[in-house]
Amino acid sequence: MKKQSYDVVIIGGSAAGLVAAMTTKSFYSNKSVLVIRKEEKVMIPCGIPYIFGTLGTSDKNILPDGGLIKSGVEIKVAEVTKINKDEHDLVLKNGEIIGYDKLVIATGSKPYVPKFITGTNLKNVFTIPKNKDYLDVLNNELKGLKKIAVIGAGFIGVELSDELVKNGKEVSLIEVEDHILEAAFDEEASVIAEEMLINRGVNLINCAKVTAINGSNKVESISFEDGKTLDFDAVILSIGYRPNTRLAKESGISVNDMGFIKCDTYMRTHQEDIYTAGDCAQKRDFITGRLTPVMLASTACAEARVAAMNLFELSTIKTFNGTISIYSTSIGDTAFGVAGVTEKRAIKEGFKINVGSFKGMDRHPGVLNNGHYQLVKLVASKNCGLIMGGEVIGGVSAGELTNVLGFIIQNKMTISDLLCSQIGTQPMLTASPAAYPIIKAAEAIAKQMMK
Amino acid sequence: MKKQSYDVVIIGGSAAGLVAAMTTKSFYSNKSVLVIRKEEKVMIPCGIPYIFGTLGTSDKNILPDGGLIKSGVEIKVAEVTKINKDEHDLVLKNGEIIGYDKLVIATGSKPYVPKFITGTNLKNVFTIPKNKDYLDVLNNELKGLKKIAVIGAGFIGVELSDELVKNGKEVSLIEVEDHILEAAFDEEASVIAEEMLINRGVNLINCAKVTAINGSNKVESISFEDGKTLDFDAVILSIGYRPNTRLAKESGISVNDMGFIKCDTYMRTHQEDIYTAGDCAQKRDFITGRLTPVMLASTACAEARVAAMNLFELSTIKTFNGTISIYSTSIGDTAFGVAGVTEKRAIKEGFKINVGSFKGMDRHPGVLNNGHYQLVKLVASKNCGLIMGGEVIGGVSAGELTNVLGFIIQNKMTISDLLCSQIGTQPMLTASPAAYPIIKAAEAIAKQMMK
Repeated sequence: MKKQSYDVVIIGGSAAGLVAAMTTKSFYSNKSVLVIRKEEKVMIPCGIPYIFGTLGTSDKNILPDGGLIKSGVEIKVAEVTKINKDEHDLVLKNGEIIGYDKLVIATGSKPYVPKFITGTNLKNVFTIPKNKDYLDVLNNELKGLKKIAVIGAGFIGVELSDELVKNGKEVSLIEVEDHILEAAFDEEASVIAEEMLINRGVNLINCAKVTAINGSNKVESISFEDGKTLDFDAVILSIGYRPNTRLAKESGISVNDMGFIKCDTYMRTHQEDIYTAGDCAQKRDFITGRLTPVMLASTACAEARVAAMNLFELSTIKTFNGTISIYSTSIGDTAFGVAGVTEKRAIKEGFKINVGSFKGMDRHPGVLNNGHYQLVKLVASKNCGLIMGGEVIGGVSAGELTNVLGFIIQNKMTISDLLCSQIGTQPMLTASPAAYPIIKAAEAIAKQMMK
Repeated sequence: MKKQSYDVVIIGGSAAGLVAAMTTKSFYSNKSVLVIRKEEKVMIPCGIPYIFGTLGTSDKNILPDGGLIKSGVEIKVAEVTKINKDEHDLVLKNGEIIGYDKLVIATGSKPYVPKFITGTNLKNVFTIPKNKDYLDVLNNELKGLKKIAVIGAGFIGVELSDELVKNGKEVSLIEVEDHILEAAFDEEASVIAEEMLINRGVNLINCAKVTAINGSNKVESISFEDGKTLDFDAVILSIGYRPNTRLAKESGISVNDMGFIKCDTYMRTHQEDIYTAGDCAQKRDFITGRLTPVMLASTACAEARVAAMNLFELSTIKTFNGTISIYSTSIGDTAFGVAGVTEKRAIKEGFKINVGSFKGMDRHPGVLNNGHYQLVKLVASKNCGLIMGGEVIGGVSAGELTNVLGFIIQNKMTISDLLCSQIGTQPMLTASPAAYPIIKAAEAIAKQMMK
């Protein structure tokens, strides 16, 4: 069979694959680039929960191909079954062979279905994969179902529950930990989010371990570890995702103990001319230096940019130096954001820290229309004052305020730096310059450092 | 007369005075602090334009004293007539003498009334000082007046015009330069702001130099250099502000050629134990290193924090290293922000630069409700890629997006740094991670740098 060859082949067409392809074309415009992906139409990953309420359909949540096509990237809808790393080629399911000079593996992640819950193969048990056909079936099936159990209260579970309630469903959000969003936020923020979800009609069940999904052929109820049973029409599992690295493993690409493809700060795998980016790529925490399983579309995009820029020419100033885990979400008009480590995680890791908070308004004077309270919490290293993390609760501008925190952490700024920082303020757009929450929270920590 | 003494005396009660006092109490809690200010009630400076529309009254725009009182700062409403720097004391208008160990001069600024316009002493010619009594008179007088000329289309002039139109006035905004907001923005942004103001009912008159305000005892018309005359009931001068440093000059405090009080990076004046902060304090541009007359409440607050922290113990890591000029404003639902230097100013100063822009949506997918387009323009040094400035147009989150730019500039980040940066994104709160406008604008510049 005639072997077609490309300078760059990217396996995977979601956030990381798209950005890797676009960036390659930006930095190496004369190279031929092929994206091989399984899906005809690709979902915007973070938009998926909104299909089930605000958007109403997956057709409004499609990652557009226009940019790829315009920049000359070729797209092939196919499944790769083998990477021949020595031969520098790939085998597709139909037997076709594609050669590459450089390869980027961006195969993403897939929903985790835990073995400790029985009955996950029953009808009306769903997961949330990044697959349009599956999501269309799910959205359609849900139309006839009323009582929905969402198991797992991370970002996807929380956003999905809120959307399903908007859509008239009776939703129970079930979390094994003490609080929702436990992995991302400290308790104060989780409690506020919980109150909001309850007020919006979500039935919250915390500290509850599901052991079984019951039913003759379709979901009828779920059982908990404490013996309780509750009736449901459907179950959606949102317990997390696992790196989709079977192809890599089977092809002899090195994978770490958590199942992620091993890589360096240039996003090179241990195998020659093979790079990786996105949910399937190994991640180290920016603060702790440890391996972490955090998966975020924004991290994926940063990794993909770094991988692509270093494909044909390494640059020591274009590296990925660990994931900062910058998240945000919103419930109604309230936004929740976090960057870096939380207080509880810093303590668990063994850091000595100081913590400071400030609550104000996101307008000044606060009486201006459409103002929202704004709460910032900072976590700083006790001895040097380095900002290790922060949390934000506020209105719609809290998403970008979380990005301000992200840049503060990325630049290794300290409490002293923040106290001397300049910000821009405007009555309709931000807090007052005398009460900018990041600086006031830094001041609260500075007071503790003087003691 | 018995002389009362304080460890720290601050002259001026606006943004800089307030923050200097609060910060002193935060860092030196056992020191006695007195704020001497002329006004019984202090205006929130940036909120002033909104008194004439959205807020309706100055009573909703008062900088609260609660924080000062709670932290043990004393407030005295009085006018200082002399600083005796050798004796370390102040003379008040009533003859009272107040001793100080450390003094902070935060006397702010006052509206500029140009000599090249005649008739500025006529009735119904107003300025916009930060004085409640004056603003109350103005707000009251305007009730009976219909046709208002606002002369000077900086931030105050633009915001004021928009508010007056909301309030049913016929407003002409008159600017001597080619475009409104000429000092802050490049032409593209100014043109968009102009279109919006016109659509909202403001009569814009650019490239127009006013030579005279005419009337027998009150305003009847204004005359332009080209001989034209237009009828008005009132004129509001918003041509800028000048540092209020008469007291300093008369007391032998060193003042620069632009009239600002000379100071170093610790905000110390050239006179022992005297510090300064805010609109009256000398400013250097963070990028150009040159003296600049830019006045911003947020800059004032940063200077005040630095001054206060260094009052009794200098810290080499708590300095003010030049003003970045981070501004923002909003017209309707559209926000405009800028940080650092604009393209035209960079060129005028003699920098070799690259410029890159990106326009996208502040939600993803963009079809989500309440989305607003978001445009980012970056200015970077041609040889090293250092980010020197940026402009933002967007929705309400553009205020904080401008602060993201501010932290990028403060941390001397380069195009390469931005290309590897991590950001947090969420459908309801931000642009897509694959199309985050700051990073895409950086990519546009990176492409130029490769040529």
